[in-house]
Amino acid sequence: MMKVQVVQNVLKANDAVAAANRRILGEAKLLALNLMSSPGSGKTTLLEKTIPMLGSACPSAVLVGDLQTTRDAERLSSIATDVVQINTGTGCHLSATQVAEALTGLDLGRLGFLFIENVGNMVCPADFDLGEHRKVVLLSVPEGDDKVAKYYTLFQRADIILLTKVELLSVLDFRIDRVQDDLAKLNTRAPFIQLSAKTGQGMDQWITWLHQQRAAVR
Amino acid sequence: MMKVQVVQNVLKANDAVAAANRRILGEAKLLALNLMSSPGSGKTTLLEKTIPMLGSACPSAVLVGDLQTTRDAERLSSIATDVVQINTGTGCHLSATQVAEALTGLDLGRLGFLFIENVGNMVCPADFDLGEHRKVVLLSVPEGDDKVAKYYTLFQRADIILLTKVELLSVLDFRIDRVQDDLAKLNTRAPFIQLSAKTGQGMDQWITWLHQQRAAVR
Repeated sequence: MMKVQVVQNVLKANDAVAAANRRILGEAKLLALNLMSSPGSGKTTLLEKTIPMLGSACPSAVLVGDLQTTRDAERLSSIATDVVQINTGTGCHLSATQVAEALTGLDLGRLGFLFIENVGNMVCPADFDLGEHRKVVLLSVPEGDDKVAKYYTLFQRADIILLTKVELLSVLDFRIDRVQDDLAKLNTRAPFIQLSAKTGQGMDQWITWLHQQRAAVR
Repeated sequence: MMKVQVVQNVLKANDAVAAANRRILGEAKLLALNLMSSPGSGKTTLLEKTIPMLGSACPSAVLVGDLQTTRDAERLSSIATDVVQINTGTGCHLSATQVAEALTGLDLGRLGFLFIENVGNMVCPADFDLGEHRKVVLLSVPEGDDKVAKYYTLFQRADIILLTKVELLSVLDFRIDRVQDDLAKLNTRAPFIQLSAKTGQGMDQWITWLHQQRAAVR
């Protein structure tokens, strides 16, 4: 019981900081998104393609969560207005406190979007509210069509689900209808976009959704 | 400090149970392997191909860790001698206690191999000894060539590293030399096998390694 108690306290403390983050981000009138997925599902590549498409009137910053390297932050540094690397050591998710600390170094007022690239993991990040406005969950085609049922907490909480690397559908055994059936069982109303950062498929739909969501929080 | 203390106690308790598991598995003269990787890197598919190749003189059992579904266990039930599903709920890794409980239901004396398919996750499982003899880490080509540096604890602890889905090397941008450079920095002596469960590439090398390791623990 003791372990459970501690976990509940950790989540409660996290939620309080997340609420404070949400207040700060709301006042800045930007849209904050928490990107969650397995390692290698294409979060960084998606951001590399997305940020230039959002237009210069809407500058973006990125908080990049990773265990130890700064590789993703380096990839994004020439594209985003600001990039903050958060190294979690052995931590399998970002916490609201880590995000709060990262926010202190940013000029939020001039930003249109804040992308928070969580640690690559389909389990832990689902439980930790960071104060974001929207949760974005990526599933890449090579990961297989059985992942929605396996990691349903993550998909249940998603505000949008992006099926990435769809250019590989022609070379892999992947049944989209199986994913859609599993999503239907979750009774989610989150949009489901089939996307390829490589060919550009679905990118317009994703960019339109981002602008709509930003308008909704302003 | 309290949180750190609790985590240390959890790990210490886990290690004690893992040591007991290792004793039980050693007495049964079987080889126990802990398979760790991202979701969708091909653990279940690898086992589907591996178990029939090990020969009828060496029956295999599989413990399958998953958050909630029994899909992997169902896939393996016609192939392995015994399959035990361990559902972890929201837990991001298997624990030694879960393995100890699963072992009580198996006739260990008649088994040659015990495969423990951990929860798909590159972070949490690395810290939890289950009492296995060898740690097997899978990295699939679609996950990208930057993962060794990002999840180095997992790769550092691996006794063998399998690069899976190499049939996709021709359609994806993946530099094997980058992976090998990162592995060299870890100073690991673990064999690195390029493998395709689809085409069969590397499977003989993997099967040979398994038999060698089994001979070493008997």
